[in-house]
Amino acid sequence: MKRFMYVLLFVLLTGATYAQQAKYVFYFIGDGMGVNQVNGTEMYLAEQEGRIGVTPLLFTQFPAVGVATTFSATNSVTDSSAAGTALATGVKTYNGAIGMDDQKNVIQSVAEKAKKAGKKVGVTTSVSVDHATPAAFYAHQPNRSMYYEIALDLPKANFDFYAGGGFLKPTTTADKKEAPSIFPIIEEAGYTIAKGIDDFKVKSTQADKMILIQKDGANPSCLPYSIDRKDGDMTLAEITESAVSFLTKGKNKGFFLMVEGGKIDWACHSNDPATVFEEVIDMDNAIKVAYEFYKKHPKETLIVVTADHETGGLGLGTGKYELHLKALKNQKQSQDLLSTAITDLRKAKGHNVTWEDAKALLVEKMGFWKELPLTWEQEKMLRDEFEQSFVKNKVVFEETLYSKTEPLAATARKVMSQIAMIGWTSGSHTAEYVPVYAVGAGSKEFAGKYDNTEIPKRIAKVAGYK
Amino acid sequence: MKRFMYVLLFVLLTGATYAQQAKYVFYFIGDGMGVNQVNGTEMYLAEQEGRIGVTPLLFTQFPAVGVATTFSATNSVTDSSAAGTALATGVKTYNGAIGMDDQKNVIQSVAEKAKKAGKKVGVTTSVSVDHATPAAFYAHQPNRSMYYEIALDLPKANFDFYAGGGFLKPTTTADKKEAPSIFPIIEEAGYTIAKGIDDFKVKSTQADKMILIQKDGANPSCLPYSIDRKDGDMTLAEITESAVSFLTKGKNKGFFLMVEGGKIDWACHSNDPATVFEEVIDMDNAIKVAYEFYKKHPKETLIVVTADHETGGLGLGTGKYELHLKALKNQKQSQDLLSTAITDLRKAKGHNVTWEDAKALLVEKMGFWKELPLTWEQEKMLRDEFEQSFVKNKVVFEETLYSKTEPLAATARKVMSQIAMIGWTSGSHTAEYVPVYAVGAGSKEFAGKYDNTEIPKRIAKVAGYK
Repeated sequence: MKRFMYVLLFVLLTGATYAQQAKYVFYFIGDGMGVNQVNGTEMYLAEQEGRIGVTPLLFTQFPAVGVATTFSATNSVTDSSAAGTALATGVKTYNGAIGMDDQKNVIQSVAEKAKKAGKKVGVTTSVSVDHATPAAFYAHQPNRSMYYEIALDLPKANFDFYAGGGFLKPTTTADKKEAPSIFPIIEEAGYTIAKGIDDFKVKSTQADKMILIQKDGANPSCLPYSIDRKDGDMTLAEITESAVSFLTKGKNKGFFLMVEGGKIDWACHSNDPATVFEEVIDMDNAIKVAYEFYKKHPKETLIVVTADHETGGLGLGTGKYELHLKALKNQKQSQDLLSTAITDLRKAKGHNVTWEDAKALLVEKMGFWKELPLTWEQEKMLRDEFEQSFVKNKVVFEETLYSKTEPLAATARKVMSQIAMIGWTSGSHTAEYVPVYAVGAGSKEFAGKYDNTEIPKRIAKVAGYK
Repeated sequence: MKRFMYVLLFVLLTGATYAQQAKYVFYFIGDGMGVNQVNGTEMYLAEQEGRIGVTPLLFTQFPAVGVATTFSATNSVTDSSAAGTALATGVKTYNGAIGMDDQKNVIQSVAEKAKKAGKKVGVTTSVSVDHATPAAFYAHQPNRSMYYEIALDLPKANFDFYAGGGFLKPTTTADKKEAPSIFPIIEEAGYTIAKGIDDFKVKSTQADKMILIQKDGANPSCLPYSIDRKDGDMTLAEITESAVSFLTKGKNKGFFLMVEGGKIDWACHSNDPATVFEEVIDMDNAIKVAYEFYKKHPKETLIVVTADHETGGLGLGTGKYELHLKALKNQKQSQDLLSTAITDLRKAKGHNVTWEDAKALLVEKMGFWKELPLTWEQEKMLRDEFEQSFVKNKVVFEETLYSKTEPLAATARKVMSQIAMIGWTSGSHTAEYVPVYAVGAGSKEFAGKYDNTEIPKRIAKVAGYK
């Protein structure tokens, strides 16, 4: 009895201060995913079930919840590279910097610390591998647009697994000079390059270090939007699965895996709400892969989900005491593909495109007139733009950070936001809070309100990285 | 030694599940205060110090942080009565309901439960005592606009202390009939009515139950905005101080005190950012009073700070990677007082008001041209409106929920938001998350993501109300 009591006492005394170390770390970053993007997605899901309220995503049910500020060292509104650097290294820097502080000193990322601690490390994204957010974890360059130089930093970091759409400038340096392709350079450093999931499955057992990108012919800048996905397209969930299988093979010392849902931001730059909410759901599907792993190793796994900044100034309301998010389900494709369809129509019929042709396309792709009645104001917006860009042939494409959009597609997107009662204050980023959700070993550390620089510090702490 | 060990064991075993009950509860509700209103205020404060980042308010430093959803039983976007009822009773209801569920059954509020549990109870606000949020804690009426009937519920609830601007319809029933003044009715029920803080100080020691409103002559609908405050105006901090002193006098069994910062919402309805941020700071000043009390009774005091909903769809960014919140400091008054000044100018000079006169007023009140250079577009917006409303004499006041605004004042406010790079998606409420912050006894319960109906339930739990 006395002995039992001593043991109990020991357990109680140590239990308070000792928590299991996070052997396996998942770090999900929804680019552009502010609190409203998350809340909006859950209300969008509920409205599809015919209810008012929220249908929870998986990750919002995680026990630890925080909010984080995102400003950079130089700007109230951060860009993705300064925010990525903050989330990777815990240091504020200037907009544009990748893994460097505001004096251009190289700073170590939590991924590099994990590697040093003997962990397997993976850095993955739904956009290009050399894009700002993933780059901040493995590269050190003064400017995010130095894609070639960033790619050359990839083998130097010597991580075990990288994945994404592809590479943006595999043969062109920052000063626009032709240069040796990065691919053989990376292969010489011991990496196996897999193109698509099937290729990955064939090569992964033999591979020592791996890079997974899309098949030849796919757009290297990103995976397709979830709303536009076709059979055979690579998904963020598949990337996550592949990463987990690769990082746990052989001698298992644990891993650190960053997964970016990179196109939430792109859809927000386009102010395209249906595409935004479907991208958030898609990231949740990737998080489900991590959660299945967590369920098998609950005491040793930490999952942290956050964002680098909010994009779009998304507002859940435009004046009435209601929303109409269900309407968004009538949108069949992203604004980008609607734009392509309009360009195709123009190419096919030249000057002979009629208002009836344009209407038929908008009925099919957006549900306008058919499922979604338009006000005269809304019809007029579309008709006026049709007159400009088809009858008068004054075609001024709308240019945002990641898209050039047919003006009629841009107007259709605006009408859809109006119908859904979604507002936007910006085509760029905002200074708004980002949410943080965590489950598993050390997750308690992520509750509260803090700066984004705290996140990698707390991950390093609970994972025991030095 | 053995005995000591048993004691230690007992302490450790009970410590985990037993937390001190919240004898004193402060429940602060910032009407319309979404997460961006809070973050925006902290960035506004930092920019005044010449820094990028945040200068923390007191309440955002509280250890427990949550976010809450706010939809009502009938609407994705709640009004203040359904939200007030949710925060008071833990039950979702239809927009418009006060202390009733969606079947019009009376539902008990956490304040009524506190009273039943023998606590002193106070319900206070910076708007009128019969307004939706305070009313939801003591009244039970099918519609928030039944101000007379709501006031008659006040003595029935039998709470100890009420405070606010005044009463909106003290002699007129919901069906617009003249009726006996509520004041003698309330006095007969044992209440002492104090008009202003000095009067309160004189009467409070003798009073059994108390109602504190503004002096005769003040606008009963609300206290002045913080940005418009003059010497002698009653403040929310003074109301909080008075409540604490009244609720702790005599036999001290603990208290429940609700304090509403009601005009954050009003300024957001007007999309008037300087006035919004100053109102948030003003509520923080009232919270400081509570925090001083907490420091004296840290183990027995709980402070919860939240909001009923977001108003305005406030966005912290409009397209560039920056904000210019410092500019707001040049705004000397709320949009309402600017409107009054413009009307006064019209009255004084009739048709002879020149553009130079109007400009001089805008230089003085908003810092335009002088401290804040305008673009040609911005100057044109103001000049066009001047031509309409002064030269052509077409004066169309802008009507929002709580203001009628001179069109030139409304335009000036829009220009100020542009300069500050603040966006708005709505003149009404949105479905966005509200923040929750808590400190003290039981505060841990308020961390996480949950629905607003959880908040009063958790307060009742940690305070031991049945």
